[in-house]
Amino acid sequence: MHSRTVFFVSDGTGITAETFGNAILAQFEMKPRHVRLPFVDTVDKAHQAVRQINHCGEVEGKKPIVFTTLVNMEVLKTLQDGCQGMLLDMFGTFVHPLEQELGIKSHHRVGRFSDASHSKEYSDRIAAINFSLAHDDGQSHHDLAGADVILVGVSRSGKTPTSLYLAMQCGLKTANYPLIPEDFERRQLPPALEPHRKKIFGLTIQAERLAEIRNERRPNSRYASLDNCRAEIAGAEAMMRRSSIRWLSTTTKSIEEIATTILQELRPERLVY
Amino acid sequence: MHSRTVFFVSDGTGITAETFGNAILAQFEMKPRHVRLPFVDTVDKAHQAVRQINHCGEVEGKKPIVFTTLVNMEVLKTLQDGCQGMLLDMFGTFVHPLEQELGIKSHHRVGRFSDASHSKEYSDRIAAINFSLAHDDGQSHHDLAGADVILVGVSRSGKTPTSLYLAMQCGLKTANYPLIPEDFERRQLPPALEPHRKKIFGLTIQAERLAEIRNERRPNSRYASLDNCRAEIAGAEAMMRRSSIRWLSTTTKSIEEIATTILQELRPERLVY
Repeated sequence: MHSRTVFFVSDGTGITAETFGNAILAQFEMKPRHVRLPFVDTVDKAHQAVRQINHCGEVEGKKPIVFTTLVNMEVLKTLQDGCQGMLLDMFGTFVHPLEQELGIKSHHRVGRFSDASHSKEYSDRIAAINFSLAHDDGQSHHDLAGADVILVGVSRSGKTPTSLYLAMQCGLKTANYPLIPEDFERRQLPPALEPHRKKIFGLTIQAERLAEIRNERRPNSRYASLDNCRAEIAGAEAMMRRSSIRWLSTTTKSIEEIATTILQELRPERLVY
Repeated sequence: MHSRTVFFVSDGTGITAETFGNAILAQFEMKPRHVRLPFVDTVDKAHQAVRQINHCGEVEGKKPIVFTTLVNMEVLKTLQDGCQGMLLDMFGTFVHPLEQELGIKSHHRVGRFSDASHSKEYSDRIAAINFSLAHDDGQSHHDLAGADVILVGVSRSGKTPTSLYLAMQCGLKTANYPLIPEDFERRQLPPALEPHRKKIFGLTIQAERLAEIRNERRPNSRYASLDNCRAEIAGAEAMMRRSSIRWLSTTTKSIEEIATTILQELRPERLVY
C-alpha cells in the first residue's frame, strides 16, 4: 500500500527530476507512489498539475512531495503559489548560489535536449548505437579499428547490455566479442582482436550466477551446466590474464557500475571533458 | 578554453550527480571542464579527491564547483572540511527537510544499484533489452503478444534507438517494425501487427531530414532520394491515420523526448508507479 505520493514536475521530459528524486528517496525506508508529470511548460499545464497534486494530498491526507526542475519562472511561480505539497525546487536551490559564485545570470532555457537533430553530440550517440548493434556478439570484424571499446567475455557475461549502455549513454562505439572454447584451446586472443588490445576490456562472472542465467535460456543443456560454466570462465580468465587485459566481474554489478568502471580504466578522458 | 572546473563526486557511479549537475549547468552560458569522480567511498579516497580539487583551484585561480551526492557522512565531512571549492551537497540539501516532513531518518546507504543481480526490476531491464534486440527491425514475429510496445515507421525514422532506450531505461519490451512500400500499397497494417494495435506507436519524420540521414548510409540511392522519402512518409502517415495509430514526428526530438511521449500515450502507468 502506498501512503504518500511523490510528484516529479518538469518542463522537459522529467527524467532529470525523476533520476535525482529517486536517488534521494532511496535514502528512506518507504515506498511512495511515483507520478512523473513531463512537459509542464505553460501556466495552464501548471494549474492542471497543481489541481492534481492538491487533490492527491486531500485524498491521502498527507502532503505530497513535489520535486521540480522547472526553469520557466512563471510556471514555477504557479506551482509555488498554488501547490499544497512540499515543494523541492531542485533548480532554484542550486542555480541562485551558482549565479553568485559565477557572477553571471542563468538564462532559464528549457530542456537539456532542445532540437536534438542539430547537435553533434546527439548524432554521435546515434552513430554509436548503430555501430554497437552491427558489432554485437562478434557479428562483424569490419572496422574494429573504429571501435572505442571492445568487450570480451563468455556468452551471457553481460557484454551486450553493457555495449548498448556505453553507446547510448556515453556515445562510445562499442563492439563485443564472445570468447569461446576454441579460443581457450588456442590459448590466445581471437586473431581479429590482437591489433586492438589497448581498447579491449573483459567481463567475467561467477560460475553459479552464469549457470542460472544460461539455464533460463537453455534449461538443462551442457551449455548451462555448472561444470561447463566453470570451465569456460576459468579458460577466459586465464586468457585475459595472459594477454594482460583488464577485466571485472559483473556478478553483482549493474550496467551503470560496469560502464563507469570501464570508463575509468579505458577512457578516463570520458570522465573529464 | 576552459576557465573553470566542475567536479561530480559520488560514492557510487556519479551518474546521478552528473545528470543533475549538467542540467543545472545548462542554465549558464559557460563551458567548464567536467570531472566525474566515481566510487569515492572511503575517507582515503575523499582525501585524494580533496587534493585533486584544491590543486585544480590553485592552478585555475578560481573556486572549482563541486556537486556531491555523498551518502556516507564521514566521506562527506572530509570534503566539507578540506575542500576549497564551492560545495553543492545535493543529498544533504534535500534529505534533511524530507526527514522532517516524513518523520523518519534516512539510512545513508550508498548506491541506487546495490547488488543489481538480486533485483527483479534489474532483471526485467535485461530481459527487455534481449527482447528488443531479438525484435529489432521486424526480425521476429515470435511473441509479439509479449511486447509492451511495438514501434512502426519507415526505415531510419528513429525506431531502433527508441526501442533500445525504452528497454534499457524503462524496462519495456519493445519490438520495432519497418513500414515498407508493400504495406502502403495494401493500405493496411502488416497482418502480423493487426492483433496488437493497442500497443502500436508510430514514428514519422520530415522528408528533408530523412533524406539527409539516408544519404549518409546510401549516398545518391533511390532509397535516400527526397522524392522517395516524401512518398514513403506520405504512405506511412496515411496508413497510421487510417488505422488510428498514435504517432509523433521525431525530426527535432531526442530519444528521451520520444520515449517520454510514448509513455504518456501508451503506458501512462509507467509514469505513475
